[in-house]
Amino acid sequence: MPPSATKRFDIEISEVGPRDGLQSVSAIMSTADKKHWISALAAAGLPEIEVGSFVPAKILPQLADTAEMVEHAQRIQGLSVTVLVPNAKGAENALKAGARKMSIPLSASETHSLRNVRRTHTQMLAEVRAIRAMFDALPAADRPFFEGGLATAFGCTLEGQVPEDRVVRLAEQLLEAGCDAVGLSDTTGFANPKQVKRLTRKVWAAVGRENLTGIHLHNTRGQGLANALAAVEVGLTTVDSSMAGIGGCPFAPGASGNIVTEDLVFLLESMGLKTGVNFAKLLEARKILAAALPGVELYGFTPDAGLPKGFVPATVQE
Amino acid sequence: MPPSATKRFDIEISEVGPRDGLQSVSAIMSTADKKHWISALAAAGLPEIEVGSFVPAKILPQLADTAEMVEHAQRIQGLSVTVLVPNAKGAENALKAGARKMSIPLSASETHSLRNVRRTHTQMLAEVRAIRAMFDALPAADRPFFEGGLATAFGCTLEGQVPEDRVVRLAEQLLEAGCDAVGLSDTTGFANPKQVKRLTRKVWAAVGRENLTGIHLHNTRGQGLANALAAVEVGLTTVDSSMAGIGGCPFAPGASGNIVTEDLVFLLESMGLKTGVNFAKLLEARKILAAALPGVELYGFTPDAGLPKGFVPATVQE
Repeated sequence: MPPSATKRFDIEISEVGPRDGLQSVSAIMSTADKKHWISALAAAGLPEIEVGSFVPAKILPQLADTAEMVEHAQRIQGLSVTVLVPNAKGAENALKAGARKMSIPLSASETHSLRNVRRTHTQMLAEVRAIRAMFDALPAADRPFFEGGLATAFGCTLEGQVPEDRVVRLAEQLLEAGCDAVGLSDTTGFANPKQVKRLTRKVWAAVGRENLTGIHLHNTRGQGLANALAAVEVGLTTVDSSMAGIGGCPFAPGASGNIVTEDLVFLLESMGLKTGVNFAKLLEARKILAAALPGVELYGFTPDAGLPKGFVPATVQE
Repeated sequence: MPPSATKRFDIEISEVGPRDGLQSVSAIMSTADKKHWISALAAAGLPEIEVGSFVPAKILPQLADTAEMVEHAQRIQGLSVTVLVPNAKGAENALKAGARKMSIPLSASETHSLRNVRRTHTQMLAEVRAIRAMFDALPAADRPFFEGGLATAFGCTLEGQVPEDRVVRLAEQLLEAGCDAVGLSDTTGFANPKQVKRLTRKVWAAVGRENLTGIHLHNTRGQGLANALAAVEVGLTTVDSSMAGIGGCPFAPGASGNIVTEDLVFLLESMGLKTGVNFAKLLEARKILAAALPGVELYGFTPDAGLPKGFVPATVQE
């Protein structure tokens, strides 16, 4: 959700399952099932969905139909639709598909950046400038919202600890290079709640609160919801999560990469924070996912346990 | 750990696996394996272990050797050993076994209390008074530390929401009836972080901070570590957890009853809070558990993912 848009809920959950989730699953979900699932996620009240990634189909065949997903999802009334673009070429394709919101990842660990996208920080910032120039050539009303995601912001499996000052500097550089906002991403599941609050405040001090509102957390070491709580307590207002926790780097049993949308919704709603999500409809969307990806393990505790007796969510359940 | 004792760590983890964990597993761990496991848990630095429950063996055959566990564990230098006693008869047996610390559960939901122990609040408070009288008849130095655990303090599967004022009143009554301290227990996995902080402060306002230092959380809806974070943030200093999350009311997959000791240690240590626990030795204890309970699913993310590269725990790892 662009910061310029009015926030409709206390916390906006950005559902990343159709991108971050599906790209990590070896099975390929059919285009028809994807559309059905995305529609169901939107119908459950999730305000934003990341529907795919503009990477070459030979790298991620699971996301080869991203352009069609953009077209489908942007027809859904009131839904914020976002896509990942790894570089200027990806942004060009996203633009052709009519995407209205894009994010580009910049790994705070340069070692990870080189390994992941074979580009240095300087090269990635050049991509950001090229994308900005591409957008600025468009009429103002046609320019997509463009976010920079600071990957490995809380540590890196290759470099280990990542200096916080480097993350702050990269946030400034992303904004200078033309991003409309930045987000923090715990790509590796290294983050702890204290660090989430501290790093958020450091970035805010450098770039302003309005330029950092979102966080992407992983559950690699089971800390996902504790970190989400810290994010909400410090004042971030957008949290990424994935239905059934699909995606990321799964370990067995009970492990999952992304934090689980269903459990995050329960966390927020139980604290009186409106998410706009309807639980019953969320479980309907989960059923569609389960049917479309047979054999893929689905995580999450709340779907199995059910809502507590007498529970009153913050969001009115229609 | 009795509040009177000096706190050795920032947060004291009370390991409840040998009681709350084993009582929920149908397999019976051998007495030899239990001793081995308890010794390994203590060697890993866990400052307190709940080693069993003085209930009739016909009800919980898994815990029939609790007296022997007390005798074994209390020989371990520096370890705080605690047991559950459901009533005065149990306390009498615990006393005979030489137990130095006991806790009695009182369910804030009277419906649950009747279902669980077939006693009303009034009857349970009479048990507490009888136990207090039993202890007061002993020389002061021989009196065990006696805690009252407020079960279903955050809600009940039978009654639904439990009025917070009732929990506060029961905390006062437990202390008046002779408990040395009270603890809060989210028996049903209903709690949310805001409620954890609010209810803790309410009980503190009524009975004083020194009389409530501990909390027992379940992970039924995946909120365990987020609630533990809230508990630590508000200022509670003892948190119960279970190795590998065994116990409670498991749902599949990824669900567990108790919060996972391994992941809780990572949460606290990563925030700079000393727990006294050594990670490598904790994983040794987990191996013993795995070997002693073949076929029982072990939960926890940190054991599978490992510690982050470059991670520096708060507790010096010897």
